[in-house]
Amino acid sequence: MQVADPTTVLDAEALAAYRRDGFHLAENWLAAELVQQLAAAATGILGQDSPRRIMERDGVTVRSVYGPHQTDPVVARTCRRAELAGAAMDIIGEPVYIHQSKINVKAAFVGDQWEWHQDYIYWLHDDGIHNPDLVNVAVFLDEVTEFNGPLTFVPGSHNEGVLAATEKQGPPMGYEDAPQWVSTLTADEKYQVRPDVIARLVRTNGMVSPKGPAGSVLFFHPNILHASSQNISPFGRTTLITVYNGVSNPATSTGNPRPEFLAARDATPVRINS
Amino acid sequence: MQVADPTTVLDAEALAAYRRDGFHLAENWLAAELVQQLAAAATGILGQDSPRRIMERDGVTVRSVYGPHQTDPVVARTCRRAELAGAAMDIIGEPVYIHQSKINVKAAFVGDQWEWHQDYIYWLHDDGIHNPDLVNVAVFLDEVTEFNGPLTFVPGSHNEGVLAATEKQGPPMGYEDAPQWVSTLTADEKYQVRPDVIARLVRTNGMVSPKGPAGSVLFFHPNILHASSQNISPFGRTTLITVYNGVSNPATSTGNPRPEFLAARDATPVRINS
Repeated sequence: MQVADPTTVLDAEALAAYRRDGFHLAENWLAAELVQQLAAAATGILGQDSPRRIMERDGVTVRSVYGPHQTDPVVARTCRRAELAGAAMDIIGEPVYIHQSKINVKAAFVGDQWEWHQDYIYWLHDDGIHNPDLVNVAVFLDEVTEFNGPLTFVPGSHNEGVLAATEKQGPPMGYEDAPQWVSTLTADEKYQVRPDVIARLVRTNGMVSPKGPAGSVLFFHPNILHASSQNISPFGRTTLITVYNGVSNPATSTGNPRPEFLAARDATPVRINS
Repeated sequence: MQVADPTTVLDAEALAAYRRDGFHLAENWLAAELVQQLAAAATGILGQDSPRRIMERDGVTVRSVYGPHQTDPVVARTCRRAELAGAAMDIIGEPVYIHQSKINVKAAFVGDQWEWHQDYIYWLHDDGIHNPDLVNVAVFLDEVTEFNGPLTFVPGSHNEGVLAATEKQGPPMGYEDAPQWVSTLTADEKYQVRPDVIARLVRTNGMVSPKGPAGSVLFFHPNILHASSQNISPFGRTTLITVYNGVSNPATSTGNPRPEFLAARDATPVRINS
């Protein structure tokens, strides 16, 4: 493995928390001006009809747009910043590339839940990434509260590896005519962790929903068990999530790979630009 | 109005909070032994197939059973206790009778949300109760946490009276063949408060989700604007809710009244039995 000089964006305490719990919340991590630029960019990105855009179960509300780092200059620059890419290098321990990015929305009143799942099983099965040495980096573009469907983690569950799951057959609700890869993106999780496994882990480890103001950044492990509730608040909530992967751990699947905007085939390391 | 001697179950601070905020949480209000008896009774009540039982949208998970104070001796005795009926007298200022009772369940993983609504509009329009001088008394039979779909209030919204709402036409999803009164009971609220009204009130007053251990009791005003999210936790959560009304404020509707298990016609005051 090609080990980079440590970028030391994250301190030892933050890294220890990440290794122990599977996540670390850096409150007020990005400057307010940058957050405003990102929020404005997100509004534009979410408004564009494209195959990159995934809707809620209702078919009319936008839930996610994939690959904005490939199309939007503000997002592209942000994803190369030390606070994000440098911190990802600290966590992974080598140079990183961007495997995936997305803007997720939880719309006011209707923003739906995500069922309990792990992320890595998708990247293992669908993209052929051999090790769970990736990191999710979620930038809060709005304040995250207990009322707007925060991510909920089972702390320490990333240490359990890939949990027993059943693979759901057939397309998700409302996407009966969509390409096969859509089943990896919607709220109807393709890989559903067994309820008894979830109950056992919650009984021993509990649950945590990290909350914080806009500009906070949440780093979390691809094997941490997580879910999120609806947004019952009257205000929408937007998040930019970038998935960084170590350059020695690229996608290897060859048969019918997912589109480039879902799973990068180019593992050129990010050049940090801050 | 026939004014009772004050029962002084609630102290002045609790009453002031109720008047100001529209709710009051009494933590650990009932003894653990009583809570265990109630939880055991609830399990039996929820298992009985009857018109009193209302299902979730999925059609297979129990959501509510109405009128348990009329059928179950443990619930009946509990509803006459000073901690509940006496406190309701403190709040309402006269002898009370039980307008309605129900056991609500939020099942593990699938327990669904309730949309934003006020309770009193149902009792006004469907039962002909002239004044909002009722009180909801919710007994937590399980711990209420941020993860299992707690009631969420807009504090102070009870002072706004009956808010602008649109009346939904037709039966709720999954209840196309049910009697008309079913539309007053399901998650598809019959009277939907306008989104701009909710947003305005949340902007000025915020939101609060009272949480506490099993045995806590939450008193709330029938005009407080409230909603609740799903239960994403792996454990079910059960609540006993009793609605007390002042004896001078009975149901008056005569044409096609709702069944007795939904809306009492007998306003005989509760005799407190503690």
